Amino acid sequence: MRIDFNADLGEGFGPYTIGDDEAVLDVVTSANLACGFHAGDPNVMMERIEMAQNRGVRIGAHPGYADRIGFGRRDIPHADEEWIRVILYQWGALAALATQVGARVTHLKMHGALYHKSAYSSACDRLVEAICKMDDRVVLFAPCGSPLAKAGRLAGLSVCEEMFADRSYEPDGTLTPRNVEGAIFHDPEMIARRIVDALTQGTIAARDGTSVPLRADTVCIHGDHAGAVETARTLKLRLQVNGVVVAPYGIG
Amino acid sequence: MRIDFNADLGEGFGPYTIGDDEAVLDVVTSANLACGFHAGDPNVMMERIEMAQNRGVRIGAHPGYADRIGFGRRDIPHADEEWIRVILYQWGALAALATQVGARVTHLKMHGALYHKSAYSSACDRLVEAICKMDDRVVLFAPCGSPLAKAGRLAGLSVCEEMFADRSYEPDGTLTPRNVEGAIFHDPEMIARRIVDALTQGTIAARDGTSVPLRADTVCIHGDHAGAVETARTLKLRLQVNGVVVAPYGIG
Amino acid sequence: MRIDFNADLGEGFGPYTIGDDEAVLDVVTSANLACGFHAGDPNVMMERIEMAQNRGVRIGAHPGYADRIGFGRRDIPHADEEWIRVILYQWGALAALATQVGARVTHLKMHGALYHKSAYSSACDRLVEAICKMDDRVVLFAPCGSPLAKAGRLAGLSVCEEMFADRSYEPDGTLTPRNVEGAIFHDPEMIARRIVDALTQGTIAARDGTSVPLRADTVCIHGDHAGAVETARTLKLRLQVNGVVVAPYGIG
Amino acid sequence: MRIDFNADLGEGFGPYTIGDDEAVLDVVTSANLACGFHAGDPNVMMERIEMAQNRGVRIGAHPGYADRIGFGRRDIPHADEEWIRVILYQWGALAALATQVGARVTHLKMHGALYHKSAYSSACDRLVEAICKMDDRVVLFAPCGSPLAKAGRLAGLSVCEEMFADRSYEPDGTLTPRNVEGAIFHDPEMIARRIVDALTQGTIAARDGTSVPLRADTVCIHGDHAGAVETARTLKLRLQVNGVVVAPYGIG
Repeated sequence: MRIDFNADLGEGFGPYTIGDDEAVLDVVTSANLACGFHAGDPNVMMERIEMAQNRGVRIGAHPGYADRIGFGRRDIPHADEEWIRVILYQWGALAALATQVGARVTHLKMHGALYHKSAYSSACDRLVEAICKMDDRVVLFAPCGSPLAKAGRLAGLSVCEEMFADRSYEPDGTLTPRNVEGAIFHDPEMIARRIVDALTQGTIAARDGTSVPLRADTVCIHGDHAGAVETARTLKLRLQVNGVVVAPYGIG
Repeated sequence: MRIDFNADLGEGFGPYTIGDDEAVLDVVTSANLACGFHAGDPNVMMERIEMAQNRGVRIGAHPGYADRIGFGRRDIPHADEEWIRVILYQWGALAALATQVGARVTHLKMHGALYHKSAYSSACDRLVEAICKMDDRVVLFAPCGSPLAKAGRLAGLSVCEEMFADRSYEPDGTLTPRNVEGAIFHDPEMIARRIVDALTQGTIAARDGTSVPLRADTVCIHGDHAGAVETARTLKLRLQVNGVVVAPYGIG
Repeated sequence: MRIDFNADLGEGFGPYTIGDDEAVLDVVTSANLACGFHAGDPNVMMERIEMAQNRGVRIGAHPGYADRIGFGRRDIPHADEEWIRVILYQWGALAALATQVGARVTHLKMHGALYHKSAYSSACDRLVEAICKMDDRVVLFAPCGSPLAKAGRLAGLSVCEEMFADRSYEPDGTLTPRNVEGAIFHDPEMIARRIVDALTQGTIAARDGTSVPLRADTVCIHGDHAGAVETARTLKLRLQVNGVVVAPYGIG
Repeated sequence: MRIDFNADLGEGFGPYTIGDDEAVLDVVTSANLACGFHAGDPNVMMERIEMAQNRGVRIGAHPGYADRIGFGRRDIPHADEEWIRVILYQWGALAALATQVGARVTHLKMHGALYHKSAYSSACDRLVEAICKMDDRVVLFAPCGSPLAKAGRLAGLSVCEEMFADRSYEPDGTLTPRNVEGAIFHDPEMIARRIVDALTQGTIAARDGTSVPLRADTVCIHGDHAGAVETARTLKLRLQVNGVVVAPYGIG
């Protein structure tokens, strides 16, 4: 058994910082870097690219809606062609900065409301087509079993299906919305147990107790709150103790 | 004699429009597209890329400071590494959108205050190094005789030295600042005469009447005011009548 | 019969302009001024305050969501207390500028998605309470028959119920959404006829042909498109010819 | 001897926080609240107004340039009438929110680059005129001995001349720019000693060791870094131990 371990990073902006990116980068294998719309700015992006590059951590674009005040978590109406352009714009921006240290953006994972929009939209095949035109070697991160994961694979993209370490799931396999009580877990040991169980059994316990099939290639840990580093370390240790190899996704 | 003819376009944003981009695109050979910081947005950028592509007009990135309200014309303090990142970010964003219609961003020209900062900064060699890492086939637009033009050529980049059709020059060959009376010309015939003279004689009359040597590869016409289209058409006609070939810059 | 005649103005921003505000101000009796979130900026606001003041046109705050690219028309999720604060913030900002020419903000009308949110939200009584704390002499503009109109009147505020000259109505008395075909009218004479009929008969024809009761104190004409000035002039003339007095709302 | 003790607060924004505002509010007598341009947003502003109100801490508007990424510290070119409007806009916005808890904005202190611009500009008398039109009972915070302090007093405003606890001074009585080595002090005891000396002797030691006359009505402690709370507490204690009464400025 093998799993990639990813975190959303580079979420600072100007005078503001969120999380301890260096500590998280010491644990994960893939970094999803905010691209200046919901968080991040050209300086933060460049610094995080270098940090990830220095540690051999995979660099991914993490585009979100242009919504700093809502941290990209608000579902802001966009036409389909518009949110696709918003993704390409940010991905290209990060890719340009990556050239400066000889790095490459090897994966793409959308953020917040745009993560959900892009994964479950009827236009997700249009997104996949756009991605292929931009860079067909990119690894696409998408929620386990989502239309986007299927569309990406169908088009020949490498797809990493993703589960969330610290989030509750609904019986249909989607994430419990953040505003629902109990949607987010904080206990590192409990989080680790859930993920180990999911990886070894291929299912996860939904909010109502039912067992949801889930086959993940990567697991996400959030980096923007207090216990993030401890949770990440605990999870990695428990995975390894249980015989799960924590290793970066392959690059074609 | 031969000259490229460029205009700054794609300066609309959300509900706002500036200029008649389609009419200007029918006249020029190179389009400098705003990249979402001082003007433009992902939708406007994509539409202008398509318009230019359909007309065989060269597509260039036109990055500016993140200053919509000041239209990128205010000299906002940035550390050297920061304004270089700001350029790369926007260039990469446009390049990503260009992939969608099989187009390529073949030139780079900075906007407003960033145009001046990048052309005359002591860090312009750092910019050139960054450009080479990003795409060493790009054609760099820079003011005639500027340190940036020299640094670019020294590093092996293709450089298009640029003169401005509707702007007054100082005796030292720099542009007269916009806020000085008489800095901007509006009479199409007078503008055309100045440029024809400059191209045939290799000099331009500065604000104080002195003759300034100026050897240009491209001439810029602004697209953001009322008479822009007429000025562009008149200038092109006068250039052709005087035996100047108006043709896009070469691509390596 | 008597009606106030209002328009949304001051929608420019930095280098961008929308509409011919001076021409519209010559026709209307009340100006709703954008307050810098969806459109407008401190310069535009100050200039429009002066223009309105010089013409004896009533000055109103016209707050919208912080959404320039969507022109405040996108329904962006906000907590109830948040959109109320967003309204107060912008109203206060305009009121501060008005003091500079001895003017007063005498009415309040929300913009776009915030207009609908505030008018039909279950929290509209909380908004009314907030308005009363800010300035209980303000005249509140609200859609005809809306919960906000009722809540405002109940709390003792002066309320101007508003109809839209160039918009289609649904059988339930709400506006047909902009993205529906036929939602917006452009023919000045047809618009004038609809409003005259509505004022003289107390009903308006909904999109499905049914007759909807509508009693309006003010009629809105949009200022942000090409035919706005002609439509405004035609409407005013037809109203006057039909014996409707076009006059500003009263101030307590 | 008596001194007001102020801090810049409410500098968070959306998902971002800066400093421990509650702890600082327990120590100071006046709070300068960011107003949404360089920092802060309507939610943060409202919450900080309530926190200050509950503690009997004076509430002041703290307007800055619209420059979140530069935290309002970059000197961005503005026409004189423009930066004055930018101040009024933000002050009015905070004043509107203050009405919601029956509070009043009783002082005005500009932030960062706008603090310097407004204090030393040749247009500072125009600012004072604008302030008087807005609210002539407001207490104006201005650097000790600055043109703004003089202009304010001349116009009959209450002026609090301000010294900075943790900043170095130049021989001419202006602050040492932040980018100069040694411009900012971090040792609480050293800071306290400087301020006690200044208050008891009426002079402060400039960067070059010369003694600069300085008569302050209020002393500012920055709230945006790690040691802010400790510094504030230490300073207050040392002031009290040395017989300086720490008390809010008077309100007319």
